[in-house]
Amino acid sequence: MNIPQYSDIERAHRRIENLIHRTPVFTSRGIDALTGGELYFKGENFQKAGAFKFRGACNAVFSLSEEEVKRGVATHSSGNHGAALALAARLRGGNAHVVMPENAPEIKKIAVAGYGARTIFCKPSLEARESTLETVIEQTGATEIHPYNNFSVISGQGTAAKELIEDYGEFDLIMAPVGGGGLLSGTAISVKKMLSGCRVIAAEPEGADDSFRSFKSKTLLPSVNPKTIADGLLSSLGERNFTIILDLVDDIVTVSEEKIIEAMRLIWERMKIVVEPSAAVSLAAILANKVDVTDKKIGIILSGGNLDLGRLPF
Amino acid sequence: MNIPQYSDIERAHRRIENLIHRTPVFTSRGIDALTGGELYFKGENFQKAGAFKFRGACNAVFSLSEEEVKRGVATHSSGNHGAALALAARLRGGNAHVVMPENAPEIKKIAVAGYGARTIFCKPSLEARESTLETVIEQTGATEIHPYNNFSVISGQGTAAKELIEDYGEFDLIMAPVGGGGLLSGTAISVKKMLSGCRVIAAEPEGADDSFRSFKSKTLLPSVNPKTIADGLLSSLGERNFTIILDLVDDIVTVSEEKIIEAMRLIWERMKIVVEPSAAVSLAAILANKVDVTDKKIGIILSGGNLDLGRLPF
Repeated sequence: MNIPQYSDIERAHRRIENLIHRTPVFTSRGIDALTGGELYFKGENFQKAGAFKFRGACNAVFSLSEEEVKRGVATHSSGNHGAALALAARLRGGNAHVVMPENAPEIKKIAVAGYGARTIFCKPSLEARESTLETVIEQTGATEIHPYNNFSVISGQGTAAKELIEDYGEFDLIMAPVGGGGLLSGTAISVKKMLSGCRVIAAEPEGADDSFRSFKSKTLLPSVNPKTIADGLLSSLGERNFTIILDLVDDIVTVSEEKIIEAMRLIWERMKIVVEPSAAVSLAAILANKVDVTDKKIGIILSGGNLDLGRLPF
Repeated sequence: MNIPQYSDIERAHRRIENLIHRTPVFTSRGIDALTGGELYFKGENFQKAGAFKFRGACNAVFSLSEEEVKRGVATHSSGNHGAALALAARLRGGNAHVVMPENAPEIKKIAVAGYGARTIFCKPSLEARESTLETVIEQTGATEIHPYNNFSVISGQGTAAKELIEDYGEFDLIMAPVGGGGLLSGTAISVKKMLSGCRVIAAEPEGADDSFRSFKSKTLLPSVNPKTIADGLLSSLGERNFTIILDLVDDIVTVSEEKIIEAMRLIWERMKIVVEPSAAVSLAAILANKVDVTDKKIGIILSGGNLDLGRLPF
């Protein structure tokens, strides 16, 4: 299995640094006082297309040959990856084919189409998504860009933690949410190479705890009927991602829906930024005392800021 | 009547620049495409205490003599000015006495007390607020810092537009909301001195249109039973502020509650930042075609980001 090294993340960063935003980092005296730690939040909600996903999609698309770009890229995604891939393809001058379940939120359909992708709708099942994607690839010759179980995508996602460490130096702990594991695996590769002694801990919703169970049992277990407000974290862990996570991540903890909502509201109120529920799970774990941050310097990757403001939980 | 000049704003800026945040400026391709203009949003929601009010309060408190600081500062405010004054006084090592109506939102009471101010509650009427403040001043010898009808406060508020122009150069138009007129009058002084040919237009909610009526009739008219979601804009225009506004502001336009809510949501969704309703009135005026921005470069002062997330209008 092809697993990226830190040198691949460096190469990815050189490839995409003029295409992505070097996102700002936020701090809050109020949240520090509340948690007892010194917290630095990397604001990927300000990334292009509103989430860290653009880093990986961009690296994947810009790693392709001219010939491959001509045939286009394809994925099935109801979330941030579809929009990120669409935008990356447009910047490279290629086509993106995005398979979406017909019941995907209207706002996501508009976002993907707005970036100029061709959207193909299918029944809302994993089987329908995979078979529709297969047909699209057969018809077009497009290259599939998997949202997380992909060498170039993982390398791209690792650039967020790399920037955080370059800009803010040493950390005792760096945290990221875990869904499919793209962000977490890339983050772990960067952290473990750049900082000695810095721990990496992931947070996951209790209602979608396949990574937690897989990590504890050291066996890749699928996500079964996941249910959480953190809709970016519903995916099952990828194989490549799991291999890296088992090797480099120190712990995975789970958090309740209530704490995710509380953490999200706290970030909005104190830092005046809009983040999606998935971005709030790390702080939720800290608020729930699942992670000890007392007198420690912590980096937290805020995954993104895409959510339906008409359906807020508060 | 003592009216600040641009040199007073320069002096204020030197006095407070190490105490305030030089706030970031946001842009959005989506909002530009929607409006046809090139919009630059000055993010005073990221100012200390969450609003531009800290600039004026800070300048006022740090303009006092040691002797005056010892006796403290006082104001009546149910909003951002109370919290801003409390924080400014704490930074200077003096006391702040803040008279608040007993029915003020809990979140505001906590904010003011949290910055170490002494809070004094009174009946929710202007008479009760003024007489209670008078008593506090008699008892303590504190200096009253009016939220907007105050030379030092106006000078401080003018530093936001000054920073925007220093950082982003020429503009065709700069917009600010108008309530008591502190931000608008300070903004107008900076703009008209720094840029030749740049217009200044203010936006005001239809339900609190005393500034609009005063401006059009050239007579200072009070706010009568104002009602708007933009709770920072309920105050009646101050005398000093009105004099400056009549002299320097090009126009005042009014906007509906619906457009304010639409503009606020658009800012949250596209720019991923939390702003209060008062901050959204300028964009609301643009969306309602009350201000022509086509092919123009526009600066917009976002007043602040303090609101109750439990009571959102969407």
